Amino acid sequence: MVRFNELSAVDTAKRLATREISAEQYLNACLERIDEREKDVRAFAFINRDGALDRARQLDAGAVLGPLHGLTLGIKDVFDTCDMPTEGGSRAFEGYRPSQDAGCVAYARKMGAIMLGKTVTAELATFPPGATRNPLNLAHTPGGSSSGSAAAVADFMVAAATGSQQFGSLIRPAGYCGVVAYKPTYNLIPKRGVWANSDSCDTLGVMARTVPDVALVVSAMIEYPGLRAFVDRADEVPVPKVGLCRSYEWDKCDEHMKAAFEAARGTLAAAGAKVSEVVLPEPFRGMAQAQSLVSNFEMSRGFSDVVIRFGDKLRKPLYDRSVAGLKISGEEYQRAQKLGRECRQIFSDVLGDCDVILTPAATGEAPKGIEWTGDPIMNGVWSFLHTPCVSVNGGYGPNGLPLGMQVVGRLDDDARTLACAHWIHCRLGR
Amino acid sequence: MVRFNELSAVDTAKRLATREISAEQYLNACLERIDEREKDVRAFAFINRDGALDRARQLDAGAVLGPLHGLTLGIKDVFDTCDMPTEGGSRAFEGYRPSQDAGCVAYARKMGAIMLGKTVTAELATFPPGATRNPLNLAHTPGGSSSGSAAAVADFMVAAATGSQQFGSLIRPAGYCGVVAYKPTYNLIPKRGVWANSDSCDTLGVMARTVPDVALVVSAMIEYPGLRAFVDRADEVPVPKVGLCRSYEWDKCDEHMKAAFEAARGTLAAAGAKVSEVVLPEPFRGMAQAQSLVSNFEMSRGFSDVVIRFGDKLRKPLYDRSVAGLKISGEEYQRAQKLGRECRQIFSDVLGDCDVILTPAATGEAPKGIEWTGDPIMNGVWSFLHTPCVSVNGGYGPNGLPLGMQVVGRLDDDARTLACAHWIHCRLGR
Repeated sequence: MVRFNELSAVDTAKRLATREISAEQYLNACLERIDEREKDVRAFAFINRDGALDRARQLDAGAVLGPLHGLTLGIKDVFDTCDMPTEGGSRAFEGYRPSQDAGCVAYARKMGAIMLGKTVTAELATFPPGATRNPLNLAHTPGGSSSGSAAAVADFMVAAATGSQQFGSLIRPAGYCGVVAYKPTYNLIPKRGVWANSDSCDTLGVMARTVPDVALVVSAMIEYPGLRAFVDRADEVPVPKVGLCRSYEWDKCDEHMKAAFEAARGTLAAAGAKVSEVVLPEPFRGMAQAQSLVSNFEMSRGFSDVVIRFGDKLRKPLYDRSVAGLKISGEEYQRAQKLGRECRQIFSDVLGDCDVILTPAATGEAPKGIEWTGDPIMNGVWSFLHTPCVSVNGGYGPNGLPLGMQVVGRLDDDARTLACAHWIHCRLGR
Repeated sequence: MVRFNELSAVDTAKRLATREISAEQYLNACLERIDEREKDVRAFAFINRDGALDRARQLDAGAVLGPLHGLTLGIKDVFDTCDMPTEGGSRAFEGYRPSQDAGCVAYARKMGAIMLGKTVTAELATFPPGATRNPLNLAHTPGGSSSGSAAAVADFMVAAATGSQQFGSLIRPAGYCGVVAYKPTYNLIPKRGVWANSDSCDTLGVMARTVPDVALVVSAMIEYPGLRAFVDRADEVPVPKVGLCRSYEWDKCDEHMKAAFEAARGTLAAAGAKVSEVVLPEPFRGMAQAQSLVSNFEMSRGFSDVVIRFGDKLRKPLYDRSVAGLKISGEEYQRAQKLGRECRQIFSDVLGDCDVILTPAATGEAPKGIEWTGDPIMNGVWSFLHTPCVSVNGGYGPNGLPLGMQVVGRLDDDARTLACAHWIHCRLGR
């Protein structure tokens, strides 16, 4: 018997829209899975069991609200929600209950989604980890900061979940947990009602188990039907031209990731993709450092209230980094911003006749232990470049854990990037 | 006798730091001015009289906290404050009390500022006006959406005030009220804790009565001492190379603005500036429309919660615009984003050997009546271009009200832009 919670979001949405299954039936399948696994996985900071059930019954009794009718979503705990606490994984915000929904949460509700709970985030969507474990191997981190979203999606507890990325908080955990994350072009999903870290890097996104699933959710969340145009003709997606890109951070990858990347070339070429090499030009050499500098400059200033009034409640490494960031000079910051702009300018030409590039989503498998969410070094460049990125699975490492790849497209070329990522995911990731 | 509230922020800060005047004395001068004028001007949504007095006494009893020690600030009522309501000029948020300070507010407090009150904003920092009047002529609008900040500064109620700009909400009201507004390069002042409208256009800034004053406040607020380096050697600011720029919106200016702009050329040239003409290339023709499209796309999605749950409390024109924005397609939005990026790429070359350009800050004087905050058409391009802009007074119109000009610099070239604006303000604006 099919377990409804294991279906793709696209499939589930179709069955819900036709009333083949009821929202309550589907929700119960998700809740059963949570009952079974949450004590080990710990994906949630808050589960809205009663609210979700009421909502499912209302949905079943009324008209189909929109493309997300009855789908369960996990909401990262730095997105404000009017019906659940929002604590940001921090003692500084224990018990905080916002009066509003983030804009994208409100619109997803309007389109019929069920907000099943708040997912665990590393503290304030930075790096001190929460209690979540990698559902594929509980001894390993799920990555962060969108830890709970990646774990809940990977473990079939929800159809999809929201996340945010400043350094590598969407793509890396998705890579570690073997799910798909879609980080759209910077600012495509509105940030109103989501806690800000670095205005120049923060980007909201969504995780699910297939590329059509993330496209479905984001397109509904921001009323952008064109983003999922490929979903209805997924078999007709043109064969992509893929640039393999080692980036200046390549040497941080372990041998398993490097091998998986080389294997991906063969698989894609054998499947008919036009595969070439893309070498990032010299200015990109400084991008990872520039991203870190811009992020830390902005975060240290933006976090002033919490550091000044609640500093004793922040974990020390975060407190220390926030204070240290104040020493980054404005001149350094503005130079780094110029580099970011320069690289954004040339990136389209760097791609040449490629539609997208493929590059590792992380340095390797999810590290052992949950004290550290892993190294975001493979992500910073793309966060700062503002390009759309989609993580897809690219094989397995020595611990049997996924080795994530990321598909990176041109700025504002999200629809094509998703279609290419879907083609690639179907060949590499299943 | 000198009225302390009429001094510049730089002068006041010096006297406060040396204890030549006490914070309480200075605050009382501001409060007396408010008592005298607020019933007519209505700059404030909330005045924190007792809190400000307590704070002033604490400052007088303790060490000098930083460069803003004892200075009074007005905070636009879309910046969260932990000790005052934040209502955004909207019935939808009546009585809302955030638990946090916006990051920039918290840091300004740390640097010694006194938060005197929340200043009136047009509804949700958009266009339905508040009750504020132009202090230079009560029959006229102060402009918007940062209406109360412009009026409070112009009327000597505070040393400086914060504002935000999506379309023209800093530069235009400053122009109408004859004060200086500084809109920094996009994202320079962190937006954490400030209500978002359009992530791609929203930029925070500060108003005061001189350019050194805004530089002092912003540099302290974000720990960027280099921004005010010119203040201590303001007489040595190099003579700027100024490009006069009519822009594609020039025809929207009335004859008085056009005449003042022509007169400015003569004044600046006579004072020794190298003045030339800067013609914006063809892609800029579409920028005002692109800005409006991007803003309305983002705002309509970001405002989902308030529209869905509190739509009946929004004023109808704002409700209607928010709903209408949902019809802007994602494809149109992403095309407009590409145009914005293209213009940002070429802008530095457009400036050629000019340091800055000078262009009208508004279409003319502040319009009569307070039902309309005036036309932001002269500002949209520069909001979307993300460039630093400083408004300076450029003469007076037929009603004796100011005709504002804006000094626009290269991206991330804020320090030079401020220095040039100071030189220009000293020649044109006094």
